[in-house]
Amino acid sequence: MIVVLKQGVAGGEVDAFTVELERRGVKIHLSRGASQTVLGLVGDTTGIDQEGLLAHHLVEKVLRVQEPYKRANRMFRPEDTRIDVEGPDGVLRSIGAGCAAIIAGPCSVENRDQIVAVARAVKEAGAGFLRGGAFKPRTSPYSFQGLGCEGLDLLLEARKETGLPVVTELMAIHQLEVFDGVDVIQIGARNMQNFTLLRELGRCRKPILLKRGLASTITELLMAAEYIMAGGNDRIILCERGIRTFDSYTRNTLDISAVPALKRQTHLPVIVDPSHATGLAWMVPSMAKAAMAAGADGLIIEVHNNPEKALCDGEQSVTPEDFSSLMGSLRRYAEFEGKTLS
Amino acid sequence: MIVVLKQGVAGGEVDAFTVELERRGVKIHLSRGASQTVLGLVGDTTGIDQEGLLAHHLVEKVLRVQEPYKRANRMFRPEDTRIDVEGPDGVLRSIGAGCAAIIAGPCSVENRDQIVAVARAVKEAGAGFLRGGAFKPRTSPYSFQGLGCEGLDLLLEARKETGLPVVTELMAIHQLEVFDGVDVIQIGARNMQNFTLLRELGRCRKPILLKRGLASTITELLMAAEYIMAGGNDRIILCERGIRTFDSYTRNTLDISAVPALKRQTHLPVIVDPSHATGLAWMVPSMAKAAMAAGADGLIIEVHNNPEKALCDGEQSVTPEDFSSLMGSLRRYAEFEGKTLS
Amino acid sequence: MIVVLKQGVAGGEVDAFTVELERRGVKIHLSRGASQTVLGLVGDTTGIDQEGLLAHHLVEKVLRVQEPYKRANRMFRPEDTRIDVEGPDGVLRSIGAGCAAIIAGPCSVENRDQIVAVARAVKEAGAGFLRGGAFKPRTSPYSFQGLGCEGLDLLLEARKETGLPVVTELMAIHQLEVFDGVDVIQIGARNMQNFTLLRELGRCRKPILLKRGLASTITELLMAAEYIMAGGNDRIILCERGIRTFDSYTRNTLDISAVPALKRQTHLPVIVDPSHATGLAWMVPSMAKAAMAAGADGLIIEVHNNPEKALCDGEQSVTPEDFSSLMGSLRRYAEFEGKTLS
Amino acid sequence: MIVVLKQGVAGGEVDAFTVELERRGVKIHLSRGASQTVLGLVGDTTGIDQEGLLAHHLVEKVLRVQEPYKRANRMFRPEDTRIDVEGPDGVLRSIGAGCAAIIAGPCSVENRDQIVAVARAVKEAGAGFLRGGAFKPRTSPYSFQGLGCEGLDLLLEARKETGLPVVTELMAIHQLEVFDGVDVIQIGARNMQNFTLLRELGRCRKPILLKRGLASTITELLMAAEYIMAGGNDRIILCERGIRTFDSYTRNTLDISAVPALKRQTHLPVIVDPSHATGLAWMVPSMAKAAMAAGADGLIIEVHNNPEKALCDGEQSVTPEDFSSLMGSLRRYAEFEGKTLS
Repeated sequence: MIVVLKQGVAGGEVDAFTVELERRGVKIHLSRGASQTVLGLVGDTTGIDQEGLLAHHLVEKVLRVQEPYKRANRMFRPEDTRIDVEGPDGVLRSIGAGCAAIIAGPCSVENRDQIVAVARAVKEAGAGFLRGGAFKPRTSPYSFQGLGCEGLDLLLEARKETGLPVVTELMAIHQLEVFDGVDVIQIGARNMQNFTLLRELGRCRKPILLKRGLASTITELLMAAEYIMAGGNDRIILCERGIRTFDSYTRNTLDISAVPALKRQTHLPVIVDPSHATGLAWMVPSMAKAAMAAGADGLIIEVHNNPEKALCDGEQSVTPEDFSSLMGSLRRYAEFEGKTLS
Repeated sequence: MIVVLKQGVAGGEVDAFTVELERRGVKIHLSRGASQTVLGLVGDTTGIDQEGLLAHHLVEKVLRVQEPYKRANRMFRPEDTRIDVEGPDGVLRSIGAGCAAIIAGPCSVENRDQIVAVARAVKEAGAGFLRGGAFKPRTSPYSFQGLGCEGLDLLLEARKETGLPVVTELMAIHQLEVFDGVDVIQIGARNMQNFTLLRELGRCRKPILLKRGLASTITELLMAAEYIMAGGNDRIILCERGIRTFDSYTRNTLDISAVPALKRQTHLPVIVDPSHATGLAWMVPSMAKAAMAAGADGLIIEVHNNPEKALCDGEQSVTPEDFSSLMGSLRRYAEFEGKTLS
Repeated sequence: MIVVLKQGVAGGEVDAFTVELERRGVKIHLSRGASQTVLGLVGDTTGIDQEGLLAHHLVEKVLRVQEPYKRANRMFRPEDTRIDVEGPDGVLRSIGAGCAAIIAGPCSVENRDQIVAVARAVKEAGAGFLRGGAFKPRTSPYSFQGLGCEGLDLLLEARKETGLPVVTELMAIHQLEVFDGVDVIQIGARNMQNFTLLRELGRCRKPILLKRGLASTITELLMAAEYIMAGGNDRIILCERGIRTFDSYTRNTLDISAVPALKRQTHLPVIVDPSHATGLAWMVPSMAKAAMAAGADGLIIEVHNNPEKALCDGEQSVTPEDFSSLMGSLRRYAEFEGKTLS
Repeated sequence: MIVVLKQGVAGGEVDAFTVELERRGVKIHLSRGASQTVLGLVGDTTGIDQEGLLAHHLVEKVLRVQEPYKRANRMFRPEDTRIDVEGPDGVLRSIGAGCAAIIAGPCSVENRDQIVAVARAVKEAGAGFLRGGAFKPRTSPYSFQGLGCEGLDLLLEARKETGLPVVTELMAIHQLEVFDGVDVIQIGARNMQNFTLLRELGRCRKPILLKRGLASTITELLMAAEYIMAGGNDRIILCERGIRTFDSYTRNTLDISAVPALKRQTHLPVIVDPSHATGLAWMVPSMAKAAMAAGADGLIIEVHNNPEKALCDGEQSVTPEDFSSLMGSLRRYAEFEGKTLS
């Protein structure tokens, strides 16, 4: 950490400040220029609050040299993390470290027929995981809010029928009680900085699919993962799903460069959600392929057997037919990038 | 709601679609141009999902004419809402409808001496409410997380000592049990779209200070308020606290135009938090005055008796002396704008 | 165009306004709801100013149904435009309509040896065009500003030596005089809305590579193209090169979804600049592949024989060796997507 | 400037790099931590390219300690700059250093009657300068583009009639020939980084009103001013006019905190354009007052005698009556902030 002092600070003050900082367990390298004095803090600065230092009357600027995350940091764990999930069919599916997973299914579980039909279709097409929402975060209190526990039961039925492990969203801590049969817990973009929830997930032993917040930086996403890891759960799958920008052609702007950026900063697997990022079904195939080309460890894609009648997000759902054809391209891309697809 | 159909749609298809839409309780006005056919949906469209319509194969675009919120909409309740809060000193303080409130205090409660000293200082300077965090949402799991229940107890002691009503942040539903003595519940920017929590707050009878999310539009903030109001609690104070933009000089960008924008769209009171918006203590006075000039119904300002030693956000806290001098200006500004300050 | 009137507007006023609008050559479809009256303007609304209508005292909102661009609009010219460029070697290279072009070379021309060496290397690797800056737009007046006319001469020497057509940036109208030997004129992101310059380019007969501004929407980019096309030059290549967002990991955020978005809206070819978008050489290969996967009609990539000594943008330049290896992948990607690479 | 080296760099390499850097005229302070080596560059680093350093194979990160601008930097010229303009009436009007100026007039000059009428009205109300566009940057080639030279002549007639100095926009270098009679040259947001133009303005002896680009940082705006100052013209008035964010309620988001931010970083005067920032006439008064409260050295406001018939931007123009009433408030605010209004 680099601390730039204000102009004209007296030597005695600098000395006193140096002593104060060294008490927090770091060493100080002093560099005094003609117009500015700079302190280099050497050692573990994870516990030193950058913004706190800014409150000191001698300080002009604080610049971070090291990232504030440890457990999620590739610097301290260079090998890729691989998340293994065993489905009810006894098959082991992996995400990360050369293995890419395709997670597919409807935005929300609507009824038994719908979820089982879509589950069968996506399995047939080659998806490795079934997704489906039971608890839905909706912008309007007047929109369909998901079937809740009933939806969860239907999803688990589809799980049994197809053998596919399931991914579904958890919105609040108390829902954890009913998530026993779920294979991967999804945390939505709007809950990425729900710190109480993240802390609780650290105590849980299931893999977490953590979506990037709409206005979250790469560092903030990794700090959210760090919250969970600090509690002892390091089975985390990061998910880029579009960020909010001035552009309104797509619902959000898919930040495709987040894939290589994250993979450089962390050992955790990184997947992409082209459906929520764009909000446009016709754009899903091109963005899915772009994500694989950029090095993603998988995709989560909305598939609905009748998008026009979907109770939620139909405009971004592809049909089973389109999904099946897309899978053909994805297999080619994965192969070319040296990834095993599951 | 306006639905633009794709080019070259056949008349029969349009008729079938019209019937389908009318079944949802709206009337359709058809307008057929040379290159495009447009349907006007007349009636209550709050329950019709804009994105859902986009999934229909005939639809090119959907444009909203009416806002998707009702209870928060000034169109249906033209008079300003005034939130009255009676402090332990028996004094009634009001926010909205010509009454502006100054809420001041430290970012977090640190110990008895600190909170009582700051509480006395801000009361002396003329603040109407005491703020202080007990449960703190922090980006890093390694930062100070607030004193929790102990902090809440200390805040309530300062409340009793000074007679000031208190505002403090709630981070999770289960904390509601210990918030009995709190006068106004604050919901932080990161929880603005924690829909499970919002729904619960609808059942609660305390005023809610709802902060705008970092990347939330005016409409989304009002939809979050609508969630609470739909549950029966319409004592909501909206708070602009900076949005995330490309600019990094200040921590966030204070969207001062959100004040007149919100006041035009809703009857709810709107206050501003210049401390979190800028993250810079020296900028708080100018932004506080700008907010009053823009028509805000109050301010929430961080004050700390020793910002350099603050456990959290010291760099944005003003001293009691600076706060007192700022209050002098704010009183004049309130007077210019015809507001009663409390 | 849809015009939503204010609440409570009297019938007589609506009639008068309707007459006024019809004088501008459009037909009006009136739709009167319980709380709102809506006018549909049918016909050619390109000449009607959306913002101008907002000034009318009866108007609440104006919503566009049709895009404001005509010549660039795929709706009126469904076939892909192909730009053919004949190099000094007599070879015809094409961009668009199934043909993808790789444009490569240094950020700026530094001296004869450098530009000829890089030109040979990129030709060897399979690039179809040579890029190189002579006039450089630099944020600081104290940075290297390019070699100017001398740089242009050196670029043209490299053109002759290798037979590759060249692409170079024009910063001001008066430079057109010296651009005779240039094959494709590049307009930088900061000049995308330099309307005087765009108008002049309409009179020119060379292909224009038009870069998207840092904060320009899809529509604004197409309106900039429309300026040039309105003047009679419709040989325009659009280029996505990153937009400005809150995220600062990469220099800009590559908006990969702009590729399918633009290709749906317009018949003009669309290429991607992964070098300027990310500002990071190590990220160029993954973003270049993602762009091809997303359907781009080509790429413009910075290549330098000694990035560390580059006078400009060295941090984003790949070496000829890395470029050559990337070309191998790009050929496979083009093949997957059914594109001919030149 | 702080240069963070990659992990595991050998001592010999560091030494060689240090020698290389010192050749560029800076001293190096070396600080070697357990996991990272950091170089502090002491001395004048204005000429060292931050991005260029990133290309070096040893470098991980580069952090700036000093701002890259000199002439515009308050650190090197602590006193406020005051721009004095003498109108045709012989009255001296000042901007900066405690003097605030109100510049008012129509978006574009439409005809003699209009410009003279508005000029008289704004003078009557107390404005110090007349604004009016002759050359108009318009997003669409099909929109009204201004009256050009004829418009300029009419503006100069209004100047003579009222005695008010005039401010009008220059779009291209060649227009300088006809700007002789103009008192202050305005450079629009889209030309803020038209570096060829900026360089030319450095040779000119008229005050420049430089508008911030839609997506320009505080530093970029100051670097644009630096371009002009480097050429010898330091009579620059900076203007905040809204930035582009995700929010679309207003046309742009007025970044009110740019006022104190700029005034801390530079000695140049800073004014605000509430009309273009919001695009909404009804919001102009509240934003104008907020700007004065935030410490602005003036305002530029669009006033039109018949906004509904305005050929351009009518929706953001206030009537002379509203302007006159706003001036009453502004006088009160200026007085309270200790500013002289002209």
